[in-house]
Amino acid sequence: MPVGTAATVKGVAVPQLAATGAEMVLANTYHLHLQPGEAVVAEAGGLHRFMGWQGPLLTDSGGYQVFSLGAINRIDDEGVTFRSPRDGARIALTPERAMAIQMALGADVAMAFDQCPPWPASESVVAEACRRTHAWLERCVAAHARPDQALFGIVQGGCYPALREESARRVAAFDLPGIAVGGVSVGEPVEEMHRIVRQLGPLLPEARPHYLMGVGSLREMAVAVAQGFDLFDCVLPTRLGRHGAALVGGERWNLRNARFRHDHTPLDPGCPCLACRQHSRAYLHHLIRTEEMLGCTLLSLHNLTTLLRFTTAMARAISEGNFSEAFAPWEQDSPAAHTWAACG
Amino acid sequence: MPVGTAATVKGVAVPQLAATGAEMVLANTYHLHLQPGEAVVAEAGGLHRFMGWQGPLLTDSGGYQVFSLGAINRIDDEGVTFRSPRDGARIALTPERAMAIQMALGADVAMAFDQCPPWPASESVVAEACRRTHAWLERCVAAHARPDQALFGIVQGGCYPALREESARRVAAFDLPGIAVGGVSVGEPVEEMHRIVRQLGPLLPEARPHYLMGVGSLREMAVAVAQGFDLFDCVLPTRLGRHGAALVGGERWNLRNARFRHDHTPLDPGCPCLACRQHSRAYLHHLIRTEEMLGCTLLSLHNLTTLLRFTTAMARAISEGNFSEAFAPWEQDSPAAHTWAACG
Repeated sequence: MPVGTAATVKGVAVPQLAATGAEMVLANTYHLHLQPGEAVVAEAGGLHRFMGWQGPLLTDSGGYQVFSLGAINRIDDEGVTFRSPRDGARIALTPERAMAIQMALGADVAMAFDQCPPWPASESVVAEACRRTHAWLERCVAAHARPDQALFGIVQGGCYPALREESARRVAAFDLPGIAVGGVSVGEPVEEMHRIVRQLGPLLPEARPHYLMGVGSLREMAVAVAQGFDLFDCVLPTRLGRHGAALVGGERWNLRNARFRHDHTPLDPGCPCLACRQHSRAYLHHLIRTEEMLGCTLLSLHNLTTLLRFTTAMARAISEGNFSEAFAPWEQDSPAAHTWAACG
Repeated sequence: MPVGTAATVKGVAVPQLAATGAEMVLANTYHLHLQPGEAVVAEAGGLHRFMGWQGPLLTDSGGYQVFSLGAINRIDDEGVTFRSPRDGARIALTPERAMAIQMALGADVAMAFDQCPPWPASESVVAEACRRTHAWLERCVAAHARPDQALFGIVQGGCYPALREESARRVAAFDLPGIAVGGVSVGEPVEEMHRIVRQLGPLLPEARPHYLMGVGSLREMAVAVAQGFDLFDCVLPTRLGRHGAALVGGERWNLRNARFRHDHTPLDPGCPCLACRQHSRAYLHHLIRTEEMLGCTLLSLHNLTTLLRFTTAMARAISEGNFSEAFAPWEQDSPAAHTWAACG
């Protein structure tokens, strides 16, 4: 899922987004609550109509942003109180409020309100966050009353296997249509994330979609898909694009680099995106050097297309029964650029 | 002609630009000379290939930017010396150099190197700029050696009718495929511009395209088309778009205004652009308020589409023989919003 924080994937128009191969898009409840406010989105007929995206949409619960971005006043079992970065107003977010906001936004999938502890955090802090996350999930389930919207629970537990196992068991016990793993991609070493994914994969209910939150790098997605994960989101492709970086052959290239000044070949000859079909590395270098918006847009389109070609290729390999062979090099932390052949 | 200063119409991808109805695009010699440099563009196979625009392209001569943006060291009959704003390097621009740069850029139309005096300027200053402009035109014609590229001469003369008349006569005397009027839209009152256009229209050779430089507001284009002008360029549609303003029904609307917060209707229901077809005023307001790039792109697309619908409607009215009736209200400085019917 490309990330459309404020009901727009930054710098990308809806037809361009569709052309990247994107099917499902994520939007941020925290940001949309602050601006324009869920009432405006509801008036418009919901998030699909408001942002003009007809495909599936998911909203996060706002919890992650409150904990990572907000000026928090208080966290207790009731919920979280923080100051709006826009006008300093006190805002209280509770499981019930998070559900009400997401029901008003009207995405296809809403996420439970959870407490995501920072990394590193002691076992007792993470245990407390787990306890709260499970209690809040019960309240989310009770408050969620929109039958046309799915609610996903979130597994927490940090880097503590016993807490992860208990959280997976407790969240899976709710009869919800999907299950997410949070508290990854929060600064922990990548090996730690792999370990969590390999531990949890077999523990999650096979029939329900698994969503690994905040993860979107190629190898980590391959590792997680091998463990049964289905959904990912990541700001990386658009954030890198805005900073002049392109994902090519599994590497990050800085298009500002002088080595591209005279390079009139396509960014990635095998890529079907607008940047690669219609422009050269020298042109993209020029756009980034002159700080032209179009440079950010074209690199964002390329990076989104690259990630979505990768996930599409994994889906195809699974349906053709050869995922293990085609994507084994990615899973094994080995240099895997040669498996780009699988991404057609 | 939408303005693509640095070989990109700001914030607009090439397929989006084509969808606005744009046929011909202007790029700035001054900016492209500084970055990436005409050698890079020539290596790429010329400006069309470099920027991915297959339609006609025109480059200005760089003169206007040197006089308006540059830190000028010296102007004399030989040319202009200025300091590069990028690295402080001394750059000399002469008629021969301006031709060499534009030949390397390879647009379909190159412009003569002229001296555009500021407004206001005394008659003697403008007379001196005219004398130099005519002398430089002779050197441009001698230096221009690319038969697949048209060279247009530029009429100067400020607000002085006798100087304008003499300049028109001198420039028309060269056997060039097009003729431009410069030194308008440089700060003079709009009535002054109308007077210049009405004076020069009948004096310019009818068979050759007339280009009114730097003009792109609706009424001024209608006034000029009535006098036989064919080509215009203006940064206004994209500059307004980047600042959150939309051209609707002949007015400028500031989409940041709170009155749009709950307005879920299309920006302009009659407009076929992406912003109007797929989004609402409330969404555009939200994008501008949150400073999302997409807001700038969508408003730029709308403003370009609006201006190009207007010029297309004028072209159609001319070919159908009813320009005078359909566009009379625009020519007469009267409120003309009702003539939007003519723009289909």
